[in-house]
Amino acid sequence: MSNGFGWRCLGMGVLAAVVGCSRPEEPAPAAPTASVAQPKGLAVDDALVQFSLISALASGDYSDGAPLSQVLAGGDFGIGTFDRLDGELIVLEGKIYQALADGAVRSADMAGSTPFAATTFFNEDGRIENLTAATLEDLDAQLDRQLPRANSPYAIRIDADLRELTLRSVPAQVPPFPPLVEVVKQQSTWKRNNVRGTLIGFRCPTWVGTLNVSGYHWHFLSEDRKFGGHVLGCEFRDGLARYDECESVLIQIPRSKGFDAFRPDEIKKQDINVIERQRTQTERP
Amino acid sequence: MSNGFGWRCLGMGVLAAVVGCSRPEEPAPAAPTASVAQPKGLAVDDALVQFSLISALASGDYSDGAPLSQVLAGGDFGIGTFDRLDGELIVLEGKIYQALADGAVRSADMAGSTPFAATTFFNEDGRIENLTAATLEDLDAQLDRQLPRANSPYAIRIDADLRELTLRSVPAQVPPFPPLVEVVKQQSTWKRNNVRGTLIGFRCPTWVGTLNVSGYHWHFLSEDRKFGGHVLGCEFRDGLARYDECESVLIQIPRSKGFDAFRPDEIKKQDINVIERQRTQTERP
Repeated sequence: MSNGFGWRCLGMGVLAAVVGCSRPEEPAPAAPTASVAQPKGLAVDDALVQFSLISALASGDYSDGAPLSQVLAGGDFGIGTFDRLDGELIVLEGKIYQALADGAVRSADMAGSTPFAATTFFNEDGRIENLTAATLEDLDAQLDRQLPRANSPYAIRIDADLRELTLRSVPAQVPPFPPLVEVVKQQSTWKRNNVRGTLIGFRCPTWVGTLNVSGYHWHFLSEDRKFGGHVLGCEFRDGLARYDECESVLIQIPRSKGFDAFRPDEIKKQDINVIERQRTQTERP
Repeated sequence: MSNGFGWRCLGMGVLAAVVGCSRPEEPAPAAPTASVAQPKGLAVDDALVQFSLISALASGDYSDGAPLSQVLAGGDFGIGTFDRLDGELIVLEGKIYQALADGAVRSADMAGSTPFAATTFFNEDGRIENLTAATLEDLDAQLDRQLPRANSPYAIRIDADLRELTLRSVPAQVPPFPPLVEVVKQQSTWKRNNVRGTLIGFRCPTWVGTLNVSGYHWHFLSEDRKFGGHVLGCEFRDGLARYDECESVLIQIPRSKGFDAFRPDEIKKQDINVIERQRTQTERP
């Protein structure tokens, strides 16, 4: 558990001067040998920061999550959900948006919390211009061919005029919470045509297992910030994709009874796939 | 990828004053709403920091790992291995020790690197006094009953007079590297009786899957710092166990061809169990 500072200068030495950080008044750790260089900083600045696990969420742990203020401490870009699964969470340019079950978007109430979110500070490492995607699967396949490294997570932002877009969101749940695989059976899906906006997503390498969504996970926010949701399908031409390769993954572990009670072995990778990629029970115009 | 600072104040606001950290000269992110409190810091200070994945190690990715100086930036307590699997790595009280294939211990050459290590800054959260263990399995079962939370990782330090101790280490490998499950078939194991020293270990919750060793993973270092290794068995009375509950897990992702080439789906949890808990091909006195 924390030593009370709630925070520690990881890699204090040389980098402390760069970022203007002075060390707290703590006893210096013994130098391992006389010849040791100052520790090089760990790449906490470029972490995919996730709050809880997608497997815990899938099991029905929808409450007592991280305050939304912590989510912004973890990044200015990201996706997730809200307490009681009340809509789809979107972080774009340092603001948190909530896409409700009908697709309407509002600024999130920052007094709220999240049972699961993934964020990063988006630092562009590369871009793909004039990107055209016939389907969401086509998009994912193209990115798989173009992203540099198979075993690193990427945050990906795509700005485009979408010819067609299929979104979903789910209604807020009441205790006792059903597993997520049951909740998505109640999901609303709807289509929009000819809309400009942003796909906000991550690609996680398969080694994440059930910690996060293996492969791609996309949310959408319209340019006018009026509607959005979890993306189930899309078609666009001439999009601009920008990506940020994450150098580390930081998992924030909830301190709650719900998380303590979660049984990891009961959640399989296949369940996550159904939850995140399942299509349409109801269609809206 | 990093923004060039190699490091960022996560949770800058209130805590910055506590630890005396000033923010780098970057544009301030837009405040999401007027009522938002300063971000509460993320618990990076109390992370289980791991370098690479046990599944990547199991696959044969034994080189081009993290510099040992980075390991100490991640913690003052921990376990792991060395480049080319040249012995068992032990971090205790901020020093890195290397237990060679014959069990002899030396201070690690800090110019070296590690393909896998797990560390934390050890901040005691609780202790178990007068602990008696008939076997390693008995020890693990007792800790399972006494550690507060099933789904949190723990760093555990046990100081004891051991009546019996079975250790293993493996010899350095040469490319092309065989998978770890093959390497452990060459392991040396040996027993010692009536020795005082320290068990250095972690218990990872089952949700870690193949990222790390699910369950307990113990290394040993004798009080005189002359021998040690990976623990396969032990018996002791009247030990003192101290534990540190980790609030987060930070996975540092290697940037190497070996890691890029690793095929996560080929490594199963069962393989990790065989690697970490397999007993004895050869016995030494």
